[in-house]
Amino acid sequence: MILDQIKHPSDVKKLSKAEIRQLALEIRTFLVESVSRTGGHLASNLGVVELTLALHYVYSLPEDKIIWDVGHQSYVHKLLTGRKAEFEHLRQWGGMAGFPKTSESKYDSFNTGHSSTSISAAYGLAAARDLKGESSKVIAVIGDGSMTGGMAYEALNNVGATNTDMLVILNDNSMSISKNVGGVSQYLNRLTNREGYYKLKTGIDKALHKIPLIGEPLFRGLRKMKNKLNYMLVPGVVFQELGFHYYGPVNGHDFQKLVTVLEHIKGKQEPALLHIYTKKGKGYTFAENSPGRFHGISSFDPLTGEGKRKGTDFSSVFGETLCDLAEKNNKICAITAAMPEGTGLQKFSKQFPERFFDVGIAEQHAVTFGAGLAMGGYIPVFAVYSSFLQRGYDQIVHDVAIQNLPVVFGIDRAGVVGEDGETHQGMLDLAFLTQIPNLTVLAPADFSELRRMLSFAVNLGGPVAVRYPRGGEYHSYEDKTPVTLGKGRILKEGNEVALFAIGRMVGIAYETAELLEQRGISTSVIDLRFAKPLDESLILNQVNHVKLAVVLEDGCITGGVCEHVASLLYGAGVQTPMLSKAFPDAFIPHGSVDAIFEHYGMNSAAIAESVTEALKE
Amino acid sequence: MILDQIKHPSDVKKLSKAEIRQLALEIRTFLVESVSRTGGHLASNLGVVELTLALHYVYSLPEDKIIWDVGHQSYVHKLLTGRKAEFEHLRQWGGMAGFPKTSESKYDSFNTGHSSTSISAAYGLAAARDLKGESSKVIAVIGDGSMTGGMAYEALNNVGATNTDMLVILNDNSMSISKNVGGVSQYLNRLTNREGYYKLKTGIDKALHKIPLIGEPLFRGLRKMKNKLNYMLVPGVVFQELGFHYYGPVNGHDFQKLVTVLEHIKGKQEPALLHIYTKKGKGYTFAENSPGRFHGISSFDPLTGEGKRKGTDFSSVFGETLCDLAEKNNKICAITAAMPEGTGLQKFSKQFPERFFDVGIAEQHAVTFGAGLAMGGYIPVFAVYSSFLQRGYDQIVHDVAIQNLPVVFGIDRAGVVGEDGETHQGMLDLAFLTQIPNLTVLAPADFSELRRMLSFAVNLGGPVAVRYPRGGEYHSYEDKTPVTLGKGRILKEGNEVALFAIGRMVGIAYETAELLEQRGISTSVIDLRFAKPLDESLILNQVNHVKLAVVLEDGCITGGVCEHVASLLYGAGVQTPMLSKAFPDAFIPHGSVDAIFEHYGMNSAAIAESVTEALKE
Repeated sequence: MILDQIKHPSDVKKLSKAEIRQLALEIRTFLVESVSRTGGHLASNLGVVELTLALHYVYSLPEDKIIWDVGHQSYVHKLLTGRKAEFEHLRQWGGMAGFPKTSESKYDSFNTGHSSTSISAAYGLAAARDLKGESSKVIAVIGDGSMTGGMAYEALNNVGATNTDMLVILNDNSMSISKNVGGVSQYLNRLTNREGYYKLKTGIDKALHKIPLIGEPLFRGLRKMKNKLNYMLVPGVVFQELGFHYYGPVNGHDFQKLVTVLEHIKGKQEPALLHIYTKKGKGYTFAENSPGRFHGISSFDPLTGEGKRKGTDFSSVFGETLCDLAEKNNKICAITAAMPEGTGLQKFSKQFPERFFDVGIAEQHAVTFGAGLAMGGYIPVFAVYSSFLQRGYDQIVHDVAIQNLPVVFGIDRAGVVGEDGETHQGMLDLAFLTQIPNLTVLAPADFSELRRMLSFAVNLGGPVAVRYPRGGEYHSYEDKTPVTLGKGRILKEGNEVALFAIGRMVGIAYETAELLEQRGISTSVIDLRFAKPLDESLILNQVNHVKLAVVLEDGCITGGVCEHVASLLYGAGVQTPMLSKAFPDAFIPHGSVDAIFEHYGMNSAAIAESVTEALKE
Repeated sequence: MILDQIKHPSDVKKLSKAEIRQLALEIRTFLVESVSRTGGHLASNLGVVELTLALHYVYSLPEDKIIWDVGHQSYVHKLLTGRKAEFEHLRQWGGMAGFPKTSESKYDSFNTGHSSTSISAAYGLAAARDLKGESSKVIAVIGDGSMTGGMAYEALNNVGATNTDMLVILNDNSMSISKNVGGVSQYLNRLTNREGYYKLKTGIDKALHKIPLIGEPLFRGLRKMKNKLNYMLVPGVVFQELGFHYYGPVNGHDFQKLVTVLEHIKGKQEPALLHIYTKKGKGYTFAENSPGRFHGISSFDPLTGEGKRKGTDFSSVFGETLCDLAEKNNKICAITAAMPEGTGLQKFSKQFPERFFDVGIAEQHAVTFGAGLAMGGYIPVFAVYSSFLQRGYDQIVHDVAIQNLPVVFGIDRAGVVGEDGETHQGMLDLAFLTQIPNLTVLAPADFSELRRMLSFAVNLGGPVAVRYPRGGEYHSYEDKTPVTLGKGRILKEGNEVALFAIGRMVGIAYETAELLEQRGISTSVIDLRFAKPLDESLILNQVNHVKLAVVLEDGCITGGVCEHVASLLYGAGVQTPMLSKAFPDAFIPHGSVDAIFEHYGMNSAAIAESVTEALKE
């Protein structure tokens, strides 16, 4: 097997064309087989096999730098840089990460995870190189989906006005995780599909007619050659106008063509953009046909493409509930930033297409667009992953909260998400949201609570966030108390320890209480429901009955619910000691959710132990 | 005076051309005279007199909606919508705001303040209109500076793929607050200056030569008409390609031309972009010559254009110190997001041009670009206003903090900034920064402390933020204790009350202590210096000596230093009561800094009073 002989990225340079072809096949086979066992990102990696080979063939790492936008397409790169054996423990606690990590290999130049950062980072590395007077090469590889993120454009705008030697490879597969949207996507389609290119709705025809300087004769002559001329005059003109030398489009599965154009570009010193078109999932039929499903996937059968059927999760409950609510209230709209599947909005998109808005990977725009909809009398619900909403922080403050508009945030993947690691953990939302004036923040303990909270949220008449974790519910409670602004609920009464929990932690609190009761410690469980406003009277009242208060939070220890409660208790002169159980002030690496909870002493066994210890003091 | 007869925006429609010309003159005279007394934004408003008149002439508010990007150019609009008398109290506490406010007038459709939000908001309003089946018009007015912000592009990308009836007016004056930068700016220059347009560095010539389908003869023929053809085929092609119907460029000071083109566009139903070129400061020579100085200005003499000479402020100390540090250490770079003057970086930009980077209004890119520079071995210092850094929150987390890179944030305008109001107050940074792992956060009490802290920061070797207020120092301290990681300092010892303060609040604490001592209350003043990591041992040690602890913070009460200290004290089982003196969980309106501090009971007199009261309890 050729793959086994690749120990160093430069080994690729020694291979013949036939060997490269063979290696590409081996890589695809390995990836399908390996990811089918461990789970991980598949379709995006199958799409960049030839590109990655060509990059390692033409460039020399680690002197030259490749920045993989988002980074889930870095598996081939990892395979070619001596990490094949690590695929056994891909994305597991202590194992190899699913994204580039400078701490993992000197061939990884910059960590990624979120979309649209690569051009900015690449320009930073290129500027540093220029200051040092060195001459290495810097390449950003970015998908057409990531090109809908405004940050990529900020970087293009900046770099285009310089003479920096830097290459942006636009890997165009017409997809984000789902089908890509927006004007740029349509533009790229026209570039790769010349047929379509001529169908500009504001065509050259009209433009020519309008221009007084050209007479009819010239116009008639021009029209004849228009079909040819058009395209030839303006390929990549958008990028050219921004100051980039545009190359392409090139078939990204044609290794030889890629090498030829990369060698050519390598000889230049200027901002260049190479537009390649690839097929997500290339070479594995199931992934080619369902690239969305094979984007990030759990273990599956490589022969049938079938995975475990996913149980009901918070995302699907969210999506179904929103459909129910939208059926009764025609003011409710749904917004997604390129994640209709992940956030559970697919059903909504089919049932209410006119009230469904996929704005592209553009969280900033999504939030302010929502504010506009709300100003226009609608109730937009923006479904978004916690860590991606970090992109919209200013817009939540500036456009939603200051104007006190009824925008609802459905925050999925809140708290620990697991295998995607540091960049994807939703550890910060409880902290960064609760500090924003006018915003109400809730977290459901189970599915039925999510339904009630969403119904509460769309009727609140102000900015409100409901945050819930990835995956299923931990426990399901019989209690169906309606949701009232700023009111928690008591799920279990006891008189020695009071466990105050929010969201997913309510289930863990319940389990902890059972363990404590087995040890003869009478324990109450209080579901705070609201991270903001806190149910201060409930907390103060409950804490006075017990020897120890414990706050359980699936988020960072700094600035979140634990601190809010501690601050409340201290301000009120309460003497009862309090234990804060949240995740530490550190970035949480990848691993299964269970492994992470265990490592940080956040499962019921560990918490019961801490509580027992604390009672002894 | 015609201006006095304009009580309703539709009154403009009744005027003759000559009267409009007269009115434009009156407006300019009024603005110069009025702003020379109150201070405010001048140059941007002088630039949009004809545009605003044309908009009110053609469109009918409040049914039609205008969204003013950033919003500091809304004075003419305010004048035409019945708010002339309010200019007397422009930007004063309780007076008229300097930005659009829906709470102030039904003719203001959407609040703005930060850059690049208008297209997103306009699309929200347009989508709401479409859902309601109405037919009003929505117009976003955005400057070429704001077009460097990625959010604007996210919105263009989204809107361009729809058939939404919406107009974006690109007000191109080649300026942000300072001269505009980037590829788009150069592109717009080429559009308005056809001479320059032909000088594309990757010219059509080369492109034609390369294309095999066209033979030499065709090429020769084409070259002759190239100069004409070029421009005619591709005016506004970037916007056309994104899906907008492009109109322009039109002289934005030609009222009649503006009306003609707006009437034409009004008859269409599609995404349109009208590119106009204007002169910032138009009609007032001093402002035309120094639009940067007349962007936001304090009171000045209208006859000479001379203002009060500005005293030394934190921004200038920051800029000078950075130059001193960069002289000794050639790894230090400076980054600004289009604010070299405001952040005090002008000297640096001249002294170290190769290490100075103005990236445009692009905070997201600025942060990640900084991370790239740091990864490349440099020490970038990003000087940015607190409220604008909100735009880079995700990038601080994702690109800087997770990778633990030595990026320094020089956070200007932290805490209360005053007259610019809700959108510009820097109330949130202490909260949103201290929750980010790996980040160190400091605030200087005076100028000399800022110098020491910057020196500390560039040598720390990790992510670090130094935040300081707008304007001058409150007190200057003789104490020159070197800055040590996580260590505060005792400025004054006492045994009844301990005042723990950070940044600007140290001066107020000092003054408070004097007032308390006059009342016979022995008071210590502790400068925390670090918001993160807190000097826990100093705090715990000091708090045990007194009857009352007070924490003074120029920021929001939720999630910041007050809560961190309360949480620390409660966790340590301290019994000493604590008073939190920070700004409430609400948005702080415009007004002078003094007026705001007084209103919220945050000046020394009010704090001394609260302390005295608390001691009685």
